[in-house]
Amino acid sequence: MDSRDIKTQEIMNKGETGLHEECGVFGIYDFDGNDVASSIYYGLFALQHRGQESCGIAVSDTNGAYGNVNSYKDMGLVNEVFVGDKLESLHGDIGVGHVRYSTAGESTRENAQPLVLNYAKGTLALAHNGNLINANDLRRELSMTGAIFQTTIDTETIAYIVARERLKTPSIEAAVSNTVSKLKGAYSLVLMSPRKLIATRDPYGFHPLCIGKRDNAWIFASESCALDTIGAKFIRDVEPGEIITITKDGGLVSDRSHCLDEKDRGRCIFEYIYFARPDSHVDGVSIYESRIKAGKFLAIDSPVDADLVTGVPESGNCAAMGFAMETGIPYGTAFVKNSYVGRSFIKPKQSSRESAVQVKLNAIREVVDGKRVVMIDDSIVRGTTSDRIVKMLRDAGAKEVHVRISSPPFLWPCYFGIDIPVREQLIAYNRSVEDIRKVIGADSLAYLREDRLIELSEGMSICKGCFTGKYPEEPPKEDIRGKYDK
Amino acid sequence: MDSRDIKTQEIMNKGETGLHEECGVFGIYDFDGNDVASSIYYGLFALQHRGQESCGIAVSDTNGAYGNVNSYKDMGLVNEVFVGDKLESLHGDIGVGHVRYSTAGESTRENAQPLVLNYAKGTLALAHNGNLINANDLRRELSMTGAIFQTTIDTETIAYIVARERLKTPSIEAAVSNTVSKLKGAYSLVLMSPRKLIATRDPYGFHPLCIGKRDNAWIFASESCALDTIGAKFIRDVEPGEIITITKDGGLVSDRSHCLDEKDRGRCIFEYIYFARPDSHVDGVSIYESRIKAGKFLAIDSPVDADLVTGVPESGNCAAMGFAMETGIPYGTAFVKNSYVGRSFIKPKQSSRESAVQVKLNAIREVVDGKRVVMIDDSIVRGTTSDRIVKMLRDAGAKEVHVRISSPPFLWPCYFGIDIPVREQLIAYNRSVEDIRKVIGADSLAYLREDRLIELSEGMSICKGCFTGKYPEEPPKEDIRGKYDK
Amino acid sequence: MDSRDIKTQEIMNKGETGLHEECGVFGIYDFDGNDVASSIYYGLFALQHRGQESCGIAVSDTNGAYGNVNSYKDMGLVNEVFVGDKLESLHGDIGVGHVRYSTAGESTRENAQPLVLNYAKGTLALAHNGNLINANDLRRELSMTGAIFQTTIDTETIAYIVARERLKTPSIEAAVSNTVSKLKGAYSLVLMSPRKLIATRDPYGFHPLCIGKRDNAWIFASESCALDTIGAKFIRDVEPGEIITITKDGGLVSDRSHCLDEKDRGRCIFEYIYFARPDSHVDGVSIYESRIKAGKFLAIDSPVDADLVTGVPESGNCAAMGFAMETGIPYGTAFVKNSYVGRSFIKPKQSSRESAVQVKLNAIREVVDGKRVVMIDDSIVRGTTSDRIVKMLRDAGAKEVHVRISSPPFLWPCYFGIDIPVREQLIAYNRSVEDIRKVIGADSLAYLREDRLIELSEGMSICKGCFTGKYPEEPPKEDIRGKYDK
Amino acid sequence: MDSRDIKTQEIMNKGETGLHEECGVFGIYDFDGNDVASSIYYGLFALQHRGQESCGIAVSDTNGAYGNVNSYKDMGLVNEVFVGDKLESLHGDIGVGHVRYSTAGESTRENAQPLVLNYAKGTLALAHNGNLINANDLRRELSMTGAIFQTTIDTETIAYIVARERLKTPSIEAAVSNTVSKLKGAYSLVLMSPRKLIATRDPYGFHPLCIGKRDNAWIFASESCALDTIGAKFIRDVEPGEIITITKDGGLVSDRSHCLDEKDRGRCIFEYIYFARPDSHVDGVSIYESRIKAGKFLAIDSPVDADLVTGVPESGNCAAMGFAMETGIPYGTAFVKNSYVGRSFIKPKQSSRESAVQVKLNAIREVVDGKRVVMIDDSIVRGTTSDRIVKMLRDAGAKEVHVRISSPPFLWPCYFGIDIPVREQLIAYNRSVEDIRKVIGADSLAYLREDRLIELSEGMSICKGCFTGKYPEEPPKEDIRGKYDK
Repeated sequence: MDSRDIKTQEIMNKGETGLHEECGVFGIYDFDGNDVASSIYYGLFALQHRGQESCGIAVSDTNGAYGNVNSYKDMGLVNEVFVGDKLESLHGDIGVGHVRYSTAGESTRENAQPLVLNYAKGTLALAHNGNLINANDLRRELSMTGAIFQTTIDTETIAYIVARERLKTPSIEAAVSNTVSKLKGAYSLVLMSPRKLIATRDPYGFHPLCIGKRDNAWIFASESCALDTIGAKFIRDVEPGEIITITKDGGLVSDRSHCLDEKDRGRCIFEYIYFARPDSHVDGVSIYESRIKAGKFLAIDSPVDADLVTGVPESGNCAAMGFAMETGIPYGTAFVKNSYVGRSFIKPKQSSRESAVQVKLNAIREVVDGKRVVMIDDSIVRGTTSDRIVKMLRDAGAKEVHVRISSPPFLWPCYFGIDIPVREQLIAYNRSVEDIRKVIGADSLAYLREDRLIELSEGMSICKGCFTGKYPEEPPKEDIRGKYDK
Repeated sequence: MDSRDIKTQEIMNKGETGLHEECGVFGIYDFDGNDVASSIYYGLFALQHRGQESCGIAVSDTNGAYGNVNSYKDMGLVNEVFVGDKLESLHGDIGVGHVRYSTAGESTRENAQPLVLNYAKGTLALAHNGNLINANDLRRELSMTGAIFQTTIDTETIAYIVARERLKTPSIEAAVSNTVSKLKGAYSLVLMSPRKLIATRDPYGFHPLCIGKRDNAWIFASESCALDTIGAKFIRDVEPGEIITITKDGGLVSDRSHCLDEKDRGRCIFEYIYFARPDSHVDGVSIYESRIKAGKFLAIDSPVDADLVTGVPESGNCAAMGFAMETGIPYGTAFVKNSYVGRSFIKPKQSSRESAVQVKLNAIREVVDGKRVVMIDDSIVRGTTSDRIVKMLRDAGAKEVHVRISSPPFLWPCYFGIDIPVREQLIAYNRSVEDIRKVIGADSLAYLREDRLIELSEGMSICKGCFTGKYPEEPPKEDIRGKYDK
Repeated sequence: MDSRDIKTQEIMNKGETGLHEECGVFGIYDFDGNDVASSIYYGLFALQHRGQESCGIAVSDTNGAYGNVNSYKDMGLVNEVFVGDKLESLHGDIGVGHVRYSTAGESTRENAQPLVLNYAKGTLALAHNGNLINANDLRRELSMTGAIFQTTIDTETIAYIVARERLKTPSIEAAVSNTVSKLKGAYSLVLMSPRKLIATRDPYGFHPLCIGKRDNAWIFASESCALDTIGAKFIRDVEPGEIITITKDGGLVSDRSHCLDEKDRGRCIFEYIYFARPDSHVDGVSIYESRIKAGKFLAIDSPVDADLVTGVPESGNCAAMGFAMETGIPYGTAFVKNSYVGRSFIKPKQSSRESAVQVKLNAIREVVDGKRVVMIDDSIVRGTTSDRIVKMLRDAGAKEVHVRISSPPFLWPCYFGIDIPVREQLIAYNRSVEDIRKVIGADSLAYLREDRLIELSEGMSICKGCFTGKYPEEPPKEDIRGKYDK
Repeated sequence: MDSRDIKTQEIMNKGETGLHEECGVFGIYDFDGNDVASSIYYGLFALQHRGQESCGIAVSDTNGAYGNVNSYKDMGLVNEVFVGDKLESLHGDIGVGHVRYSTAGESTRENAQPLVLNYAKGTLALAHNGNLINANDLRRELSMTGAIFQTTIDTETIAYIVARERLKTPSIEAAVSNTVSKLKGAYSLVLMSPRKLIATRDPYGFHPLCIGKRDNAWIFASESCALDTIGAKFIRDVEPGEIITITKDGGLVSDRSHCLDEKDRGRCIFEYIYFARPDSHVDGVSIYESRIKAGKFLAIDSPVDADLVTGVPESGNCAAMGFAMETGIPYGTAFVKNSYVGRSFIKPKQSSRESAVQVKLNAIREVVDGKRVVMIDDSIVRGTTSDRIVKMLRDAGAKEVHVRISSPPFLWPCYFGIDIPVREQLIAYNRSVEDIRKVIGADSLAYLREDRLIELSEGMSICKGCFTGKYPEEPPKEDIRGKYDK
């Protein structure tokens, strides 16, 4: 697959956004002693949208040999990796799971998670979502005292520190607490020791992590939709900075010593706009509601006379519905999305006139013909796809196409777990909104106002650094993209 | 995979309907001499919803050695089968493609299409969608004059007759015409001889087939959405009973000698209700519009006081929108569908409490909480899924759940290409609507009135045999399910 | 894999000979009602040397539904094709199996055997080894009465004739008898009808076929080594021209009406020289003994003063031992063969200096250093490998290298089942023995005398056409290589 | 695959011995700047007999970005793992390769080698053959200073120490030297740093490692046969205890500070008897000659009147030839080995009477019928296979079967890299030779005398601990089997 294909694939998988979350995590401890691998499997299914390149499950039997972890991980989707008897061989009543996205360069089997390791005090399995901004420093420091690194993932860095801190502290949770003091950046982490399951979230709360319960089993998951899928009840979110330990007697111990004031936190606003599933709740906020609200704000701030509101599926649908609610303009489904064009779609090498967008989306003439259409998408990254979709609507008879974007223009890098193209590739870089409108060929274009973002999180502190260049935590001076490339 | 898993899988792939179309066909003849394999590949992508079990492509170079067909077919989705260099090795400017569904028993590699064969006059490649009702008789007759059968597909029967008729006639199109005289039942057929591409459709027009053009290439496809995908222009439908031959000089020759009067035709109404993609047009009718209309009829015929209308994704969405338009009750998206739960989902063997439906669908509390919900689906086959979805809405807070089905109750077998479970498994068999309502736990339940069906096809003659037991063509007396099982 | 690689592979798999047998067949009927698939699996293992490109098994339950054949076949070795639960799903007490070699052009999944088919009288499964010389005529004739061909294998032609003859005759064995009257060329055939297992061999007896028994099971196999492998007793060979039917009551019925006089038969002498396994017996002759004899004749007819006799593994070893016995010159194993370099070895595309021969063979210096070596191989086809092996011996210190070939020079095509390169590629074409000696760099070179061949079969009539151009049956005038290439 | 199958497989792959070497290593540094991956590929092919469960290659471009290692490794044979474009993507002029055997429990992808890692001073890739006896201590010690372990292979332990020592020393070779001071047990190691290739061998020289050259490329390989395969010249063995560094200017620097006196060394005698390929030389001794000698000693020490000497292929052949030479009794090849029954052979689950041994071996009646046969094998481990082979000879007509084993009876565990079953499974445990004779059903049985072993290595110091329980280096008190099982 040449680089051109990879790019094509990206576009096809992620629509216009072309943005990538790094991971989804899941952990479960069943005090009834049931095997948990299949629950992790279902949970990862529900989190699959957070990472499609590799996945893995590690389980342990708390009643069996101390520290005997069974794990399997590989490149691919959950239902591609756990085929045959793979799942059946994973016996244990405590376990963690992971789905992962990564940039092409680091996309290797070695980097798949959970990371399973042995150290002085037994075994650990870690699943991590986020991005450390001081990882280079930490690795350097660890290296100088003899660490070796077999992967290029932050999880290994974290694991090292936990292992070393554990040598100085009486418990694994104390070691995690010491570790948290050293980490900078974004991390939602689930960690399994032989008899404990621990979850923590960076003090800014960049990415989500929540707690669920089903009978006598405790569950941690990146998003609450994973709890629904396995029939578990949502208990609450892990608070930013909180360390929660499920102890071997079934208790839940909370360490909030690392928590910041709410005002200093910085939840990734893009979780609300795009990444999280609309049936999830993050820190008490319904993602569905956030998106409806974004659509309403667009309607209020950038109204337009039109006959139809439609969303670019799937990510634009909720905001489109909000826009329709606010304006009374009818909502309609203008596009059919080919759900078979998935991760593994590869453009054939035979020269052909078909475009990736055309294969994935088709407009329904009956819906748009003769109409003035408001088309809502969650973001414009490079602009190459929006261009074609606008044209698709016009070809289907739309008289006017008004594009509304449920986020402000991307202008800055993300250091905390979102893969945004280099600035020069961003369509908003050095372009006015009017310039962008011309590029994508719309009749009008408007973005969500930056000051509206805080309302999407219902007033809770957010990180909107990708729009403003201002981050809750000071970003590194050096470029940390591909940070451990040897 | 045990039979229980197969059943689970069925349900998961097809939602409540549990119905299966048999196939999608595609043909192309490019008079500019370009390779057509990648266009067939894209076309099959667009038709993938018509068959997910096997697929294949056969191409020929009309300027190369006479009758040198290159083909590849296997079990799996289009993007699973045509991996690596598979597509690149298929050179030729004329070709046919096929996607196939089949019941478990016949689901073998041998039965994948197109069928490629040599006979007295050279080579043929055939791709067929439908079901012959006199196939047993035809096979018996062919057998008695020495035919051997290596597959259990109708396509082989058709191929035999074409080959034999060709011996008595001066041209392949004449042989096809003679063949059509012998076939009973449903067939949309694309056939490639070394220098000609022929398409035909049974005189009843059970299943769709249309004609497109792109520059100097003629295209045949089961649905018009496949034309859109490859950037071709829709020209017109193949008329029921028509035989169209694309000759080697680029001409299109139509033989309408087998056409029936419009009133005697019988288009499968389920193409309109469920099978065809909403962005397709069948015999001049927009599938999208048909479904909107079905929803409106439900609103008119079976109104209910409610706060929200929602569709069971994807198949119930259009009708739900129609219901909302007619009643003014707000339309909302109450469910998130996990698009990663696809064809290859296999329920783990580890005992687990998670249900297949729960993994696939989740309700959004914010949308339904406290509301009286109208939930629209295209059909209820066995009822096992509807049951769970109704419960899912209630668990998400719905005060009332009113189910509306955009088709009448299934009661009869289909002999013309749709795989309907045996009568005893149909929920409507020996049950009143009220009984069904109780089974699925809805507050009210209504089906589309049978007399509305004709309006979905804008008055064109239809087959609604699965609802009425009356068929446009006399069905066989013997049970033809698994008709060639040895 | 480009054509260069294919050639490399050929050489590597078949040593100097570069010759290919077409197939191995196996059939079993167990009157104790046991499943026979695993016995077929083991039998095919023992016949794997007769064909490594595809294989298949078809079984039927004689107590089950009439004519319900289960089969599986694919490209690959027996242990590559029958992985996972493939074998377990094949239930039945009667069955046939096949291993196949083919030239690259015909090497497709469609052509894998056994061929399973339905016809007027039920089902048939056929496994065939050989090559018909009148297949073109037969196909033409069948085509003119409406036959269609989905493969390019003779088996399909034979199946057609059997099916058609069955319509005119009261039994399947009578149909086979009529079929035999029409076939010209080489065929060792095993055929399974729902309740009978039939084996036949062409009247010339080109290729072997024998009968075995284990408890209440009758077995047919291409070579007796397959009987040994499954613990069956060798009963006798199927006589050339004989048709043997195992009837449903366990009886063995022999029809010898097609048998020729012994003097008119023509067993393929290359089965004795190279193809058959040395632990097999063909028509009462030990293959091992034949090769020992060949070596002795070489010693008698082309003696040489030397210190060591060695064989090119594996095919030259027996003759080398015979040469040593006759002369008293010590036998030694001069080469180590890398048994991991198998069918699937593909030369890397990275430019490299390593040769395929070097990877496969290495000389042991201690064995040959300072010695005058007699190196025995079974044949020289193109000469490219012999060249390198001679050099390898010299590099390992051999003072002299005398090459003895246990067959006469190849000069003519084979029409009866052996794949010999086109004449122009044969090293013996237009070259004297002295010229060949120079090409391969040997100190002396001698071939087996043609008049010795008859002694290898202990006086039984043989076909030695590839050496003499004279065949027991008149070969076709047209070139039948790639005979059904469309 | 259940445990029974695993056992079957073992027996089939390794003949009677059932013994397993742990690994083969390969390294190359090409100062002409050519890509080395294909040479490593060929080299690993030649070493495949030393490990068939996983393999890997790591390369680096010394002129490219500092420390940019490309690697690929997986479970499987060399030609199963390096398929498609895997090899083509590995560009670099310096590299290491590895083939690995492991016991079932540790047989995971994580444990495949080479181990590639980053540390304070850049990257390292290590390939190791052997077994450390103080690994538990070393791991414990490393753990107490914060090491984490992601594999259960010694290579990781070694890598850690090298990395830590490098922090205290000016060069990688100095770090390796310090490391060697800490390691106990057996190791033949090849290590690649960005600009250096280093090879070392434990001071006892348990397992082989040699140096070769081809043009301007230096090569290290476990056995000299790998040098032959790639057309390289054997230069010399790495001396036990020696550390050889290939520097970036092409020089070879030897550090012999860890070398012991010859009398204190302990080469694994089983390399001579069984593991190494007969075309290899280890420490100047021809493996072929060692085995010939073993056969001669058997003839001298345990003569028997007989008509034929034969070897159990392949491992008994050389000794059989030696026995024949010494006695004058004719040597013959009594068995045909089915070379298609390889690593991946899995006994079908269908109950069947066929035994694994029968599938793999068949006796040639003509060779043994009526004869008194001497059958030579390299060892008897559990005895289950010998039993069947003796019976096979008798069934083929042998009048007497005299078994001679070219090694003494196994009685003790190996701590230095050979996987010997637990004592209770060894046939020689608690059994006299006469008892063993009865178990295997031979007419007579004799083993090689223990005092002959030293002559196989031409007087060089050996380890014969598996026969005597006395080891050159004090073995650990604790059981180190499965030493890092968590």
